[in-house]
Amino acid sequence: MQSFAFNDTEVNFVKNSKNRMIKVGILGGGQLGRMLLQAAANYPVETFVMEKDETYPAAHLCNQFIKGDITNFQDVYRFGKMVDAITIEIENVNIEALELLEKEGLAVYPNTKSLKIIKNKISQKQFYKESSISTSEFIVTENLEDLKINSYFLPAVHKLAHGGYDGKGVKILNGIDEIKNGFNHPSILEKKVQINKELSVIIAVDDNYNHCVYPAVEMIFDNNLNLLDIQLAPADIDDSLLKEASDLALKAVQLLNSPGIFAVELFLDINNKILINEIAPRVHNSGHHTIEGNFCSQFDMIWRIILKYPLGNPKTIMPSLLINIIGAEGFSGKVTYEGIEEALRIENVYIHIYGKTTTHPGRKMGHINILGQTKKELLNKASIVKNLIKVKA
Amino acid sequence: MQSFAFNDTEVNFVKNSKNRMIKVGILGGGQLGRMLLQAAANYPVETFVMEKDETYPAAHLCNQFIKGDITNFQDVYRFGKMVDAITIEIENVNIEALELLEKEGLAVYPNTKSLKIIKNKISQKQFYKESSISTSEFIVTENLEDLKINSYFLPAVHKLAHGGYDGKGVKILNGIDEIKNGFNHPSILEKKVQINKELSVIIAVDDNYNHCVYPAVEMIFDNNLNLLDIQLAPADIDDSLLKEASDLALKAVQLLNSPGIFAVELFLDINNKILINEIAPRVHNSGHHTIEGNFCSQFDMIWRIILKYPLGNPKTIMPSLLINIIGAEGFSGKVTYEGIEEALRIENVYIHIYGKTTTHPGRKMGHINILGQTKKELLNKASIVKNLIKVKA
Repeated sequence: MQSFAFNDTEVNFVKNSKNRMIKVGILGGGQLGRMLLQAAANYPVETFVMEKDETYPAAHLCNQFIKGDITNFQDVYRFGKMVDAITIEIENVNIEALELLEKEGLAVYPNTKSLKIIKNKISQKQFYKESSISTSEFIVTENLEDLKINSYFLPAVHKLAHGGYDGKGVKILNGIDEIKNGFNHPSILEKKVQINKELSVIIAVDDNYNHCVYPAVEMIFDNNLNLLDIQLAPADIDDSLLKEASDLALKAVQLLNSPGIFAVELFLDINNKILINEIAPRVHNSGHHTIEGNFCSQFDMIWRIILKYPLGNPKTIMPSLLINIIGAEGFSGKVTYEGIEEALRIENVYIHIYGKTTTHPGRKMGHINILGQTKKELLNKASIVKNLIKVKA
Repeated sequence: MQSFAFNDTEVNFVKNSKNRMIKVGILGGGQLGRMLLQAAANYPVETFVMEKDETYPAAHLCNQFIKGDITNFQDVYRFGKMVDAITIEIENVNIEALELLEKEGLAVYPNTKSLKIIKNKISQKQFYKESSISTSEFIVTENLEDLKINSYFLPAVHKLAHGGYDGKGVKILNGIDEIKNGFNHPSILEKKVQINKELSVIIAVDDNYNHCVYPAVEMIFDNNLNLLDIQLAPADIDDSLLKEASDLALKAVQLLNSPGIFAVELFLDINNKILINEIAPRVHNSGHHTIEGNFCSQFDMIWRIILKYPLGNPKTIMPSLLINIIGAEGFSGKVTYEGIEEALRIENVYIHIYGKTTTHPGRKMGHINILGQTKKELLNKASIVKNLIKVKA
């Protein structure tokens, strides 16, 4: 890629001319951007990435790297003026700039209306309620005082309205004595669901509101880090529940009225009721298995959407299992990996290292996809791989 | 990527230190380099590419782009000193530099001994003869005079010893009146084989001489351009012939005694005899279907070899068909594509555009992989796609 910061160089705004290569910008340069760019190289597209600095996982794989702050109005606006379409790999972007760009004609995936609903956990939850989409009961809290007043609602999950991701901005409050751990900022307090399983459904929507739905996956979170840890695809639940999960996810996504990729996280409770947890309006960790497990990966799919090609085939090639490679406890600094060689000795094990130079406990450093014919085979392989792969410093 | 030319910057030679990221160089920045780099982003590896300029298909996808001439001794030698291992995406590289680098401890894929045998079509052919590997009869010609003396050998195929690729450096000489079309440089004159089918077998060999063999594919060449045009995988031939092709290819590759990826092109003659045509000691057009068609693609496989991981699974996920996207006759200049949208409407059709900015007749601009359950389904899809995709200027 070529690279510059806004203060170094004049920005050349895009001139519309027929038949030139479409320029697409990605806000954020993390692992999702990296995998987006691996897929982009199959298409006639010129890729732009904006991120803080060039050490990020996606920085070296784009045509143009723009040093900038994705939460800053001016940076996002100027970046948007360089491209024909823009997408995100994280919700924490400057939405005011995206709104103005969209108003001025830029194609934004997802559109800013849906991003706005989702970005604020309060408005997201209210959207479900107003749309009669089955979700857990909740209360909005403005501060800790508010939380105390509503302590009758515990045990519950307290989620910051803004800025939470990967387990940050989320606290489980089991009783009154844990209220001090809550957030003193606008948040939602969700009734704790008696979870049987956590599911996720990836849905793709194109500009003409055609959609396709990937088979639901089932996941296990790491209790300490609240990180997606192991995931099975498709989920091991009855066909009727699979369909119900898929239908509920689709209903929510269709009401968002936006093209793009959406990861709909769901709870299957102990009474086999399906509730929506939250939606990410972008490619998502819970769709990483699609790289090898499905005919069209989520990364391929979003390019088809942005480039106005027909949607791909979301069907499963073979059941798969995803293991996140997480920075081990007790290790911080320059990363080293152990066990990759041994893990790759197992048939149909695929590694995806994100190229982060440093590790710290809980940091997502990569993932492993495993293909297998049966759940049993997958779990056997997974238990071996889990014990082999170590991220150290 | 970061980019520099040798005259701009001091070269920092690699210092060996434990646990740092392995640096791998690719000589050549074309489409094979591009697809190598898409696959590289899954692994902990720092990628270097050397090529003439930054407009090449692979240039923007590497960590470090080095402007240089891959046929120049100094450039290749200095490039080699920057990395821990080196591979090629074209045979036309400076082999003297690679030999010196290898002597000085650099890992070279393929090794220079095998590259030297293959790079010269005369020595390659003599290698088959000396190794009792079934191949077409041939004569070495030094010049046109020599060719005339051996005119009794016609009809035959005249191949330049050095520098031929993609149909260049190859002439079919049907009779004495065509001798003037032959080469006035060292060449081989091969007896024309009565071809039933042309096959290719991709073989992977690791540092410990473990190997794996991809199922043989069957191809049809474009008669005018002598370019690989459509390819079916696996080949539609009897299992016994599939095995024979695979065995012959493996015998040849094993005698080359080198780690790497090898594409072995074979003829099945009208008497069902299998003859070796030639070997490319690198990822190859006839292996492009493996990206979606096989569990481990040829591009993934070579990284496993270079990074000293176990070999992947070469097995077929589903039968596939490859169509090269070739610059149309009558169009030269800034490229435009027609029909991609329509082609992608067909289930399990995958496009791979190489990012070349200009087209000319016969230029390889991309390829399409198609998956299907049966040969009939694949050929049906192919005939539709062939008529849709047009490369114009």
